[in-house]
Amino acid sequence: RGLSFENVFGGATSFLRRRYAKDVTACDLVVTGVPFDQAVTHRPGTRFGPRAIREASTLLPCDPPYGWGFSPLEEFAIADAGDMAFDYADVASTPDLIEAHAANLIGQGPGLVTLGGDHSITLPLLKAHAARHGKLSVIQFDAHSDLWPDDDMGRIDHGTFMGKAVSLGLIDPATSVQIGIRTECEDLRGFNQIDARTCHERGADWVAARIHEIVRGSPCYLTFDIDALDPAFAPGTGTPVWGGLASWQTAAILRDLAGIALVGGDVVEVSPPYDTTGATAVAGAHVASELCCLYLWNKRRNDPA
Amino acid sequence: RGLSFENVFGGATSFLRRRYAKDVTACDLVVTGVPFDQAVTHRPGTRFGPRAIREASTLLPCDPPYGWGFSPLEEFAIADAGDMAFDYADVASTPDLIEAHAANLIGQGPGLVTLGGDHSITLPLLKAHAARHGKLSVIQFDAHSDLWPDDDMGRIDHGTFMGKAVSLGLIDPATSVQIGIRTECEDLRGFNQIDARTCHERGADWVAARIHEIVRGSPCYLTFDIDALDPAFAPGTGTPVWGGLASWQTAAILRDLAGIALVGGDVVEVSPPYDTTGATAVAGAHVASELCCLYLWNKRRNDPA
Amino acid sequence: RGLSFENVFGGATSFLRRRYAKDVTACDLVVTGVPFDQAVTHRPGTRFGPRAIREASTLLPCDPPYGWGFSPLEEFAIADAGDMAFDYADVASTPDLIEAHAANLIGQGPGLVTLGGDHSITLPLLKAHAARHGKLSVIQFDAHSDLWPDDDMGRIDHGTFMGKAVSLGLIDPATSVQIGIRTECEDLRGFNQIDARTCHERGADWVAARIHEIVRGSPCYLTFDIDALDPAFAPGTGTPVWGGLASWQTAAILRDLAGIALVGGDVVEVSPPYDTTGATAVAGAHVASELCCLYLWNKRRNDPA
Amino acid sequence: RGLSFENVFGGATSFLRRRYAKDVTACDLVVTGVPFDQAVTHRPGTRFGPRAIREASTLLPCDPPYGWGFSPLEEFAIADAGDMAFDYADVASTPDLIEAHAANLIGQGPGLVTLGGDHSITLPLLKAHAARHGKLSVIQFDAHSDLWPDDDMGRIDHGTFMGKAVSLGLIDPATSVQIGIRTECEDLRGFNQIDARTCHERGADWVAARIHEIVRGSPCYLTFDIDALDPAFAPGTGTPVWGGLASWQTAAILRDLAGIALVGGDVVEVSPPYDTTGATAVAGAHVASELCCLYLWNKRRNDPA
Amino acid sequence: RGLSFENVFGGATSFLRRRYAKDVTACDLVVTGVPFDQAVTHRPGTRFGPRAIREASTLLPCDPPYGWGFSPLEEFAIADAGDMAFDYADVASTPDLIEAHAANLIGQGPGLVTLGGDHSITLPLLKAHAARHGKLSVIQFDAHSDLWPDDDMGRIDHGTFMGKAVSLGLIDPATSVQIGIRTECEDLRGFNQIDARTCHERGADWVAARIHEIVRGSPCYLTFDIDALDPAFAPGTGTPVWGGLASWQTAAILRDLAGIALVGGDVVEVSPPYDTTGATAVAGAHVASELCCLYLWNKRRNDPA
Amino acid sequence: RGLSFENVFGGATSFLRRRYAKDVTACDLVVTGVPFDQAVTHRPGTRFGPRAIREASTLLPCDPPYGWGFSPLEEFAIADAGDMAFDYADVASTPDLIEAHAANLIGQGPGLVTLGGDHSITLPLLKAHAARHGKLSVIQFDAHSDLWPDDDMGRIDHGTFMGKAVSLGLIDPATSVQIGIRTECEDLRGFNQIDARTCHERGADWVAARIHEIVRGSPCYLTFDIDALDPAFAPGTGTPVWGGLASWQTAAILRDLAGIALVGGDVVEVSPPYDTTGATAVAGAHVASELCCLYLWNKRRNDPA
Repeated sequence: RGLSFENVFGGATSFLRRRYAKDVTACDLVVTGVPFDQAVTHRPGTRFGPRAIREASTLLPCDPPYGWGFSPLEEFAIADAGDMAFDYADVASTPDLIEAHAANLIGQGPGLVTLGGDHSITLPLLKAHAARHGKLSVIQFDAHSDLWPDDDMGRIDHGTFMGKAVSLGLIDPATSVQIGIRTECEDLRGFNQIDARTCHERGADWVAARIHEIVRGSPCYLTFDIDALDPAFAPGTGTPVWGGLASWQTAAILRDLAGIALVGGDVVEVSPPYDTTGATAVAGAHVASELCCLYLWNKRRNDPA
Repeated sequence: RGLSFENVFGGATSFLRRRYAKDVTACDLVVTGVPFDQAVTHRPGTRFGPRAIREASTLLPCDPPYGWGFSPLEEFAIADAGDMAFDYADVASTPDLIEAHAANLIGQGPGLVTLGGDHSITLPLLKAHAARHGKLSVIQFDAHSDLWPDDDMGRIDHGTFMGKAVSLGLIDPATSVQIGIRTECEDLRGFNQIDARTCHERGADWVAARIHEIVRGSPCYLTFDIDALDPAFAPGTGTPVWGGLASWQTAAILRDLAGIALVGGDVVEVSPPYDTTGATAVAGAHVASELCCLYLWNKRRNDPA
Repeated sequence: RGLSFENVFGGATSFLRRRYAKDVTACDLVVTGVPFDQAVTHRPGTRFGPRAIREASTLLPCDPPYGWGFSPLEEFAIADAGDMAFDYADVASTPDLIEAHAANLIGQGPGLVTLGGDHSITLPLLKAHAARHGKLSVIQFDAHSDLWPDDDMGRIDHGTFMGKAVSLGLIDPATSVQIGIRTECEDLRGFNQIDARTCHERGADWVAARIHEIVRGSPCYLTFDIDALDPAFAPGTGTPVWGGLASWQTAAILRDLAGIALVGGDVVEVSPPYDTTGATAVAGAHVASELCCLYLWNKRRNDPA
Repeated sequence: RGLSFENVFGGATSFLRRRYAKDVTACDLVVTGVPFDQAVTHRPGTRFGPRAIREASTLLPCDPPYGWGFSPLEEFAIADAGDMAFDYADVASTPDLIEAHAANLIGQGPGLVTLGGDHSITLPLLKAHAARHGKLSVIQFDAHSDLWPDDDMGRIDHGTFMGKAVSLGLIDPATSVQIGIRTECEDLRGFNQIDARTCHERGADWVAARIHEIVRGSPCYLTFDIDALDPAFAPGTGTPVWGGLASWQTAAILRDLAGIALVGGDVVEVSPPYDTTGATAVAGAHVASELCCLYLWNKRRNDPA
Repeated sequence: RGLSFENVFGGATSFLRRRYAKDVTACDLVVTGVPFDQAVTHRPGTRFGPRAIREASTLLPCDPPYGWGFSPLEEFAIADAGDMAFDYADVASTPDLIEAHAANLIGQGPGLVTLGGDHSITLPLLKAHAARHGKLSVIQFDAHSDLWPDDDMGRIDHGTFMGKAVSLGLIDPATSVQIGIRTECEDLRGFNQIDARTCHERGADWVAARIHEIVRGSPCYLTFDIDALDPAFAPGTGTPVWGGLASWQTAAILRDLAGIALVGGDVVEVSPPYDTTGATAVAGAHVASELCCLYLWNKRRNDPA
Repeated sequence: RGLSFENVFGGATSFLRRRYAKDVTACDLVVTGVPFDQAVTHRPGTRFGPRAIREASTLLPCDPPYGWGFSPLEEFAIADAGDMAFDYADVASTPDLIEAHAANLIGQGPGLVTLGGDHSITLPLLKAHAARHGKLSVIQFDAHSDLWPDDDMGRIDHGTFMGKAVSLGLIDPATSVQIGIRTECEDLRGFNQIDARTCHERGADWVAARIHEIVRGSPCYLTFDIDALDPAFAPGTGTPVWGGLASWQTAAILRDLAGIALVGGDVVEVSPPYDTTGATAVAGAHVASELCCLYLWNKRRNDPA
């Protein structure tokens, strides 16, 4: 807890300058990176996502995050568990390692926010969280539904994993929702969708209210594919699609989700080699910070110090 | 028709992976590139526009385009006629070559969508289309009116060609409209304008309805200068102007134009050397794809298989 | 006054192609650069801001600026006073030099628009203007309030200078306003704020009206930190924060401020090394041009030729 | 054979503008791409290598390649077999597909030059060539020996594959040589090495002569890891090491290898996302062109038309 | 003459901070820009060459240029005549304008160093210089001979202009020489060549001596196509070819040419949109500075103050 | 000592993955960063140098550094002391902080290698080392002598500090040497120089031998301004000058300096915002690694475990 002085441009680049720790038993919340990008249809590069998000997070102010009215860094113990190591030359073995890595961290008590990596990592993350919290509602910000049909559980694919999560019974589509979609998928597997055009036509207030309506009080996992944002706001991603969300819209929706029963979350598909403006890493750091706030908001309410 | 498997990142980069063809008699629609950029006031580079748009198009999903409810690639025969060749060292000869190239393609039957190149190419394209379809209505997305006075027909200039199209009687300004304008021009030559600020204040629905009102059922040509988009969404262009359209707004307007009597169209001024985010080529590919949908929508309705 | 022909891509890159001049007694308005960036918390680079803004300004049309209905370049004498020189190796001496430089220029009669440089330069600029015009109202576009506590007047810091301006009695916070804020600051020192989310929710018309309401007829100084814009629209800045203003919104607000009693202004924090899209310099040139229009609008009304 | 006119900046981007073909029975030489990059220790991106090398090849002159004295494009039938397709989500299956793809092409008769992709693809390529030509000598340009110990044949790793090629008996290290090495490896498995410093001290003539001495007349495969070049000449690669070869040195060595009994070759590790100068793709295209010349030089001598 | 203080990063960006002047009668040497790039086979962008070279020149030290032993800026009157204006929409008219522009400047007395622009501008520059000095020897640094056959004098082409200069009798190939060539051309029209490989094998001393031997005391024009340098040293050019000259080699050759009877020169093909490292503009500024030194060296010797 | 597994692209980015430590009493060698860039004549950005060098160092092989024959990471205790914190808004106070920071670290016993930052930081570093080791010989790799006259000790300037070091008696110019120089300076203050051209003409062996001759056995400090390298090899620096050293040349010289009595060293002027190729950070990491080897080579010889 608390802050020691480092220049924004200097010092070690852990998430929000939190200490690196593998033992996180005393923590309220832990952030970890999964630099895996070997399951993508188009452009790789998200293995550098955790590094870039951490670096961008050093720019986030030491003051409380805007609009939340409390200071996570002062009120809670947050650690950075570093990046998971794995064998890049043995892709098939990685998903189980991710699940074990997450299970180990959340098994020690704290909430977990994961920095990807491509979106395929969310499947083992969902397994770890569902093992602890039961069937989950999912709030998915994304340009793509990731529900394309794929019966082969051996394929490790960032475009079909959410359908597998449904098939595996990890999540309940009826209380889950996808926001920002702007690609077709024939079978939504029961998911609710608020497509990008609807977000723009109805506004952030309406979207946030609709999400609350859908997930109600159920334990939920929030996964944020950075390509939910328009390429203007997040050029650094693998499969950009025009017509996406604006940053201000997304910031307002995330803030207004305060009160959801968040058990964990991730921000994925930040691809630094394509992040020419740097805006993608900045957005990724903001999303991760908002995920921390959403998780701690509840902890604060349920479990006041 | 149909699709054979290629990785998004591999294979030949024809538009939407359509076969390359010079004989297009059996086609419903043909796409061609005109890599000419020697008529610009500021930054060149759009000669690489066709190459970049094609490459970006490989990322567009094989699923039907979002929100259209039909699958152009499965229902229609679309070909890529490649790029027009010309003598870069003899600029004066190029416009006539463009006109002949377009006349040859549309003379074989199919509709034509052209990938520029700078905006000067639209004048010979309008000549070819007007020769076949008579006086045209023009729907022009642009930051600039391209109506600046220029009586010298020998000058090949991307900023004065639309005024020449009026002078030559190729188009009817009264049933034509410019969308996204944010630069002054003293004499609009009878064109309707919906400037960028109006687009932002009234919204996509209103703009689309207003365009329908103006062009009514007349045969129309849609020319899309990518600088209609704000530099945030399309940095890769020659003469960027702030305050432009957003991608989501543009996507909604284009979709809602379904039903216009489109005879052809183009997307121009995509300049890859300045497209640092890649968003410009992505936008160009989306616009070209929407032009295909707009053209085929009518064909489908008028001429059901 | 008037224009001689230069290609957009050629010729000397003074602001709007105005003549360079040190003697500005006969001028209505003068533009100067202060390429100082040695007071920043994060990324430097704004020392190249004046050069980039001038170069971008050559792209602004020779036609009157959009939506204003008059032609500053034809109706008024505007000069470019070049960049202030200073000793980069003696930072402590620079603020006084800036104040003297500005005092010298405005002492000769014309209004002054300054191109930064980092935001710390606004403190000596306010001193120079307050010395001439008395206590000022400030209209500040910014992501940050720059009001963080700092009692040490010797520190030269772009994040605390506005608080010092209050402490020094240069400005009246009650008739001043900050627009686009999206970071917390415990003590606003009496400033009004319209934060970024409010701008997005209420719209440009409302924001402009609210600013008029706050500053009323008081002599005011407009300082525009380019990070008021979202990183999508202005990636080239030192401390980007997501959720910022859009270009179209800002253009509309600035235009609708016509009538305020502007005595001077600046555009700061344009950092070309990070301006990968070029949009930041384009935005900076537009803001500077709008500042000129705002200043001359009044001059035109009060003092018709 | 022969050339039809296309502008350098237009037309389809096959290798050297050769026709795309799957049936290559009538060809002397075929070029194919293997856009696989899922076996790398550091930065991915070489899946876009084939596309970039082809595009760069369009700039190579239609005149005969410099210094060779014959015209491959006019004297021989060369085709581009396009990129191999594979399942990015099933990495373990890919090496066998590569071997089959290469075996199919060379089984039809022509020589084969492959555009990578990461260096792991060379193992299945060696398998295909050794199956046809027997045990091979290898000429490897590289910063790394790729001989690090790895007994697990299931691991697909661009840093250990050459050791596996030795273990599998595909190559004869005693008549093989690595050029440009500047990293340590404990066990060279019998390979000859001419490290980068030696290349710089002895010069291109000496190096070429030494290679001839080592491989003598044995059938050899030339694999060119672009990181053999210094990062100044080839920044676009995954694991850059300073102190590498210069382009002129490499060009001279390759030209002076004329006469070796080349049976096939590849150029790998060109990573366009990191190729900020474009020099890497240009170098890759030149290397591929030199490989074609080396192969056809012998064919021409042995088998004059 | 002389220097007033400006920060390297501030002030007007004339060449070497010389005053802008159209009347150059009192000058010893004048520098001008010709921002024309509409005659290129591949990538445009050199219209921004003059701007970039000037900006890079502000970094050149105020101290005398390295290794020359005299100070051009203190001993001679040098002016910057700015960029020539022309009609980008009427390409055919430009070459005559260039010739007239150059003739006007050198007609006033001073020597002339021109900043391009593409290499086609050298033909009218040679015309203007030959009109004043008679048939010229040419020293051409280049990757390409620019001697490809082209009988059509109306074509404006950067790859064939030198052949036309021979045909027009402007230059004497027997006392002319091309350095750095690495592309084939069937008919050298009598030119001497020192190809790139020879430069690397023989070294700068030998090359400079050989050039002196060829041009002897004849009046000569030095044209420097920046693509003579390897893409590592000059990525920002239109038609890069690997295997080029190194900067140090070129610097040594140019310095050792002191004493040639230089009547004028140019540096062309610097293309800022592709100059990702900035090294190309730095090299262009150095070449232009060396051209000034070569010209003034003689003036100093022949015409001591 | 020793290594735990991290992916190259993952994990914390300390120098060579050494542990972060403030207490370095048990260390043989410590690396620290001084992210200060507020004393530069031209382009800032080196404050991000330490971060970039550390990140690039993660790519250096775990195997022993090439050509040294021992493994520093296994044989010695090396720590990363992180970046020095300082007040960016109070530049005048920084040099003393740097001196104290270095004094504190070397006072605990270990040798020190510092990552800059601009070259001005070397003056306080020299003070700290001279206080411990007495008057020093300096080996300076640089394009500039940094000896320009400046009597004002209050000015903090990266171009005049070495002259001040002479004036303060910290160093002995007669046993000191500058390598790679290619700018004029009137008064060398007794320093030896091996300019860039000489390096290219004589070769690395000669240069290394000459340096040994000059410094003989005296305690020496090696400061490496990355602009000693040519812009092709190190574009990411503030004041690039063409005609610099090649990476291979520099690597050979540094290796051949083994045996000098190195007491400490630094690598400065790595400016990531301009390091478009990444080669500059890679070079910086290599230089820092060679400095470690040079220091430990002696320790190993004098003080065998």
